[in-house]
Amino acid sequence: MTSPVRIYGDTRSGNCLKVKWTADHLAIPYEWHDVDVLKGETRTEDFLAINPAGQVPCLERPDGRILAQSNAIIFHLARDSKLVPQDDFDQAKMLEWMFWEQYSHEPFIAVRRFRRAFLNLADDEINPDLMAKGRRALGVMEMRLLSRDFIVGDGLTLADIALVAYTRVADEGGFDLDEFLGVRAWIARVENELEIDPDEGRVNPLA
Amino acid sequence: MTSPVRIYGDTRSGNCLKVKWTADHLAIPYEWHDVDVLKGETRTEDFLAINPAGQVPCLERPDGRILAQSNAIIFHLARDSKLVPQDDFDQAKMLEWMFWEQYSHEPFIAVRRFRRAFLNLADDEINPDLMAKGRRALGVMEMRLLSRDFIVGDGLTLADIALVAYTRVADEGGFDLDEFLGVRAWIARVENELEIDPDEGRVNPLA
Repeated sequence: MTSPVRIYGDTRSGNCLKVKWTADHLAIPYEWHDVDVLKGETRTEDFLAINPAGQVPCLERPDGRILAQSNAIIFHLARDSKLVPQDDFDQAKMLEWMFWEQYSHEPFIAVRRFRRAFLNLADDEINPDLMAKGRRALGVMEMRLLSRDFIVGDGLTLADIALVAYTRVADEGGFDLDEFLGVRAWIARVENELEIDPDEGRVNPLA
Repeated sequence: MTSPVRIYGDTRSGNCLKVKWTADHLAIPYEWHDVDVLKGETRTEDFLAINPAGQVPCLERPDGRILAQSNAIIFHLARDSKLVPQDDFDQAKMLEWMFWEQYSHEPFIAVRRFRRAFLNLADDEINPDLMAKGRRALGVMEMRLLSRDFIVGDGLTLADIALVAYTRVADEGGFDLDEFLGVRAWIARVENELEIDPDEGRVNPLA
């Protein structure tokens, strides 16, 4: 019997939840190893030996090899599953949205949520760029999702998993999702496919 | 005869040059369509119809389908070439470094270079975080490159192309590459493999 992979992560981080959801959805066995980002556990000598970039999530394979970056990890786990389109162009399109998520979405939506919900900063203590650029990202998604059920192709792919992670909790960052009805409907659809409890990973459970 | 792909890009942008270098290296024919970012040409109605995210580079295929995000485009172009390792883990490792580039490298090194070399801002007009985080990124690369010639495996991959784009001009952002000798030697190695003229894409040609 092969040993399971080990996942190093913090369950309050959307980037880490992407990996958990992908493994759960594909029924890939894993050991979860908690790393508390707020307590500085990604900056200890022990952790930096695992990932010199000092970030979670990380995947450790049974052969000891380590993989970092949430979107690279889920690509590796889902490589031969329906979550990755086999068509070359669709696969690249999926990666397009995953790169876009890390560059044009996460740094604004996830970061504003972190400052507001975890650091308890007031709205006027948060750089207004984060709201403007986060709303712009939600607008780009809304345009994409008004005419389709999933980000790429006809079914759930890694692009949906990558993007839903912080979009579903954007309200905790002060974003009003009622402005983006196509996005809201898509969140419900993806949570349903992944069997995510709507309260999972939320600082403030829904009423 | 198939029509060539069309690349929309700005030759002063490292993200756009990644696409040009990959196509040139693989001898993929293309039409280059200039888009001037500084003149706001990525925000015109015509361009937003091509890429709603308002970013270059973009690839237009002969069938009219559009692909954005530099790292997704080069993945698509190089899919079946030696620039993409066929081994599953190595391929994911390559993507790990490409995601890391867009999240932990480009937003500091490319952005500081843009403010300094294109907007002509003085050092004290630039957010000091960009220098601190850019130096941290160069440190992570230095650790990786002290014991290996290329970022992943034994030869040139897309991870090298993605990372060299802004690392080679980091001096234009005020970063001192003499502190990172492993990185400097790797830049020369990658420029040599890709046959990049050291002055290409530089605001200030080398003496």
